[in-house]
Amino acid sequence: MISEKILRAFCISVFESKGFVLEDASIAADVLIRADLRGIDSHGVARLSGYVRLIDAERILPNAKLSFTKRKKSAGSVDAHGGLGLVVAPKVMQWAMDMAEETGSGFISVSNSSHFGIAGYHAALAMQKDMIGWAMTNASPLVSPTGSKERLLGTNPIAFAVPDGTASPFLLDMATSAAANGKLEIAKRKQIPIPYGWAIDPQGQESADPEIISKGGSLLPLGSDREHGSHKGYGLASMVDILSGVLGGANFGPWVPPFVAFLNPLDNLPGKGIGHFLGAMDVDAFMDKEDFFHKMKLWKQRFQRSTPIDEQVPVKIAGEIEQKEEQIRKTNGIPLHKEVIKDLQKLGEKLNIKFA
Amino acid sequence: MISEKILRAFCISVFESKGFVLEDASIAADVLIRADLRGIDSHGVARLSGYVRLIDAERILPNAKLSFTKRKKSAGSVDAHGGLGLVVAPKVMQWAMDMAEETGSGFISVSNSSHFGIAGYHAALAMQKDMIGWAMTNASPLVSPTGSKERLLGTNPIAFAVPDGTASPFLLDMATSAAANGKLEIAKRKQIPIPYGWAIDPQGQESADPEIISKGGSLLPLGSDREHGSHKGYGLASMVDILSGVLGGANFGPWVPPFVAFLNPLDNLPGKGIGHFLGAMDVDAFMDKEDFFHKMKLWKQRFQRSTPIDEQVPVKIAGEIEQKEEQIRKTNGIPLHKEVIKDLQKLGEKLNIKFA
Repeated sequence: MISEKILRAFCISVFESKGFVLEDASIAADVLIRADLRGIDSHGVARLSGYVRLIDAERILPNAKLSFTKRKKSAGSVDAHGGLGLVVAPKVMQWAMDMAEETGSGFISVSNSSHFGIAGYHAALAMQKDMIGWAMTNASPLVSPTGSKERLLGTNPIAFAVPDGTASPFLLDMATSAAANGKLEIAKRKQIPIPYGWAIDPQGQESADPEIISKGGSLLPLGSDREHGSHKGYGLASMVDILSGVLGGANFGPWVPPFVAFLNPLDNLPGKGIGHFLGAMDVDAFMDKEDFFHKMKLWKQRFQRSTPIDEQVPVKIAGEIEQKEEQIRKTNGIPLHKEVIKDLQKLGEKLNIKFA
Repeated sequence: MISEKILRAFCISVFESKGFVLEDASIAADVLIRADLRGIDSHGVARLSGYVRLIDAERILPNAKLSFTKRKKSAGSVDAHGGLGLVVAPKVMQWAMDMAEETGSGFISVSNSSHFGIAGYHAALAMQKDMIGWAMTNASPLVSPTGSKERLLGTNPIAFAVPDGTASPFLLDMATSAAANGKLEIAKRKQIPIPYGWAIDPQGQESADPEIISKGGSLLPLGSDREHGSHKGYGLASMVDILSGVLGGANFGPWVPPFVAFLNPLDNLPGKGIGHFLGAMDVDAFMDKEDFFHKMKLWKQRFQRSTPIDEQVPVKIAGEIEQKEEQIRKTNGIPLHKEVIKDLQKLGEKLNIKFA
């Protein structure tokens, strides 16, 4: 177990040592730590050295300024000029919220950015102003469309946050693939097969091999196969790609640059960097806020009290597991995998920053 | 085969005979006919007599006026006062488009409405003004949340339309359940079992019985089971329910009134009627429209030319199958099931309107 505070200080120091101003380093650290607190271990400090490698390769620029083109009062685009998605997205979200404050809704498509961590972090920011928050991003291609054996889409997440005046709001944060890549990595570490319906091999046949992605296979869209609606997962991943990538002038489909520094972006890219789509909707512009909060509490209660199949396992709403985990980890600390600790120690030694 | 023209005239006459003005009757007919043209047979004229029964039961009011409360410039709510969703949604969509024209985006939550047919019809309206369109609706409960054996959600569709200056745009229109109820009805007619992963029995166990819904079972969310991401389908269905139901003051969850006239709404409803969520985003408020169209064409082409698993089956984009079907049926006519023809003939006799 390692405390949130120590991890946070370490992350901030790492980002500062790479040229980020303190404010930006703190934002980036907060996004990563929140992932670890909420139990989304694949998107937390485990990725810190990956971000550092991209900064070292000058594929993420620490001092990038954002250009916001507000073409109308409730919509616009941002060129992030190669900045770090972890810092870009929270700043853009503030602009979307400003627009929603004025007009009721605000949406911004972002180009020329990089990985932004957990989508749910950014969507959740809107709740601070009693707004509904949206966050999406495209990502390097790992998922094949229904009927295809080619990787053309990222795990393209959709996050959606609904304020209700409580500390346990509805907060959906989901990859549009059947399983996130992190789940295959866990299976690989445990040396167990993955369930059919998660991935296919390079010939397009279903695979139980947890290492199939590194062998040229693809992840499957949510729904797994056509009979179970994979064309819907493919459609949702496409929607995220269009809003995040095409609409703001970023790359899309197979052209989205890879997260890993050892893979180079393709040639002749149709856009700039990775794309995000961020939005806010002011609850009070739709109905009386207090009435909405009251009804959302009723909504949550009704679903949580739904008759479970297994009496021992109550029905949950989106975000509930992560919110409970956050409470526990804030008190007890964050259980990092020993490989992650080793990786952070190595990073600390290299940068001459003390780790734990 | 029956021609679009004949079917349309029949539908208009039926709605007019029930008290709708010609303009509204024509809109309602157009939504139904479009479903039949696009091959979404479950949502076309096959439902006409179902709507009529709800009108006869005074659960749909032919002369309802819409009250639009535009609380801010790009967001608001509509009380449909018990009107027919088929007519309500296209009218509300126009208001959302007007807001998007002024500010870049516009979203409206609708209460006190009824079933609005295919969501894709309404989303697609936005494309006439080179806008991205959104349409969602909640519906009577058939789907159980992950881990629950209770029906709490409808098949709550999401539609998303992306203009690109062509007649074959990206048009996603998907139920958030693994399979639509119509697919179970087809299996029932053919007397074949349904695949595991579509439905569960009243005890929450997977079922292959195509009649399991009428025996108290539930449909499963997209993803089918937790291991394959059903909590994501459940999360999306919840999102639709919150935006369509809670946000505008309509009913939500288990309280959404049933489509069939022989089932009564529950007592102590928390809201009014069925809810929709409609929105538009002006492409030109995000980026130059022509540049976007050009990139969307590249996007579509890249996906359609993706390497298929089966060489005989090219990869498709959302809406492609329906768009091709529409071309065919516009020329050749609509192949109605004999049960549907019988049902329409009976309806025609009752209302003294000639059918085909």
